[in-house]
Amino acid sequence: MYVVLVYDVSKDENGRKRWSHIFKICKKYMSHIQNSVFEGELSKVQLIKMQNELKPYINSELDSVILFKSRQQKWLDKEWWGKQADVTSFII
Amino acid sequence: MYVVLVYDVSKDENGRKRWSHIFKICKKYMSHIQNSVFEGELSKVQLIKMQNELKPYINSELDSVILFKSRQQKWLDKEWWGKQADVTSFII
Repeated sequence: MYVVLVYDVSKDENGRKRWSHIFKICKKYMSHIQNSVFEGELSKVQLIKMQNELKPYINSELDSVILFKSRQQKWLDKEWWGKQADVTSFII
Repeated sequence: MYVVLVYDVSKDENGRKRWSHIFKICKKYMSHIQNSVFEGELSKVQLIKMQNELKPYINSELDSVILFKSRQQKWLDKEWWGKQADVTSFII
């Protein structure tokens, strides 16, 4: 399935470390398309694996992660307004 | 149609001001569901209006705005991992 994941990790409670773990796990499964946005084509098994890996690093009182899932990518059009850049390079 | 808009506005070149305009315009048309994420049900006309309003405030070399469009909301599942909060209140 096609997924878009957006996250907002708080800086509180050592958030920088959580952010770094979350970023690296997302990067393993998906493409980084904007500061806090990833997209990818994942199987159900991959999605569960990713969710299990992310779970320990999401502080349920501080952090927000939203996953949009579409069975087929064609059901979801994507438009870029503004720059369309590889934003990964300067972060890792 | 159902839309999800994610933005990343640079702080450079008076970005705080651009950010504020972009936030307010998005808020007019959609619901704020995460730090830089909005979702909403828009007609084609509303989408064009919103795009025209946003255009002057998106710096095409610095800012990134991505719009995901689905003809029907049911084609897109949404899952929250972590907190699911009203994030608008503390910003405006």
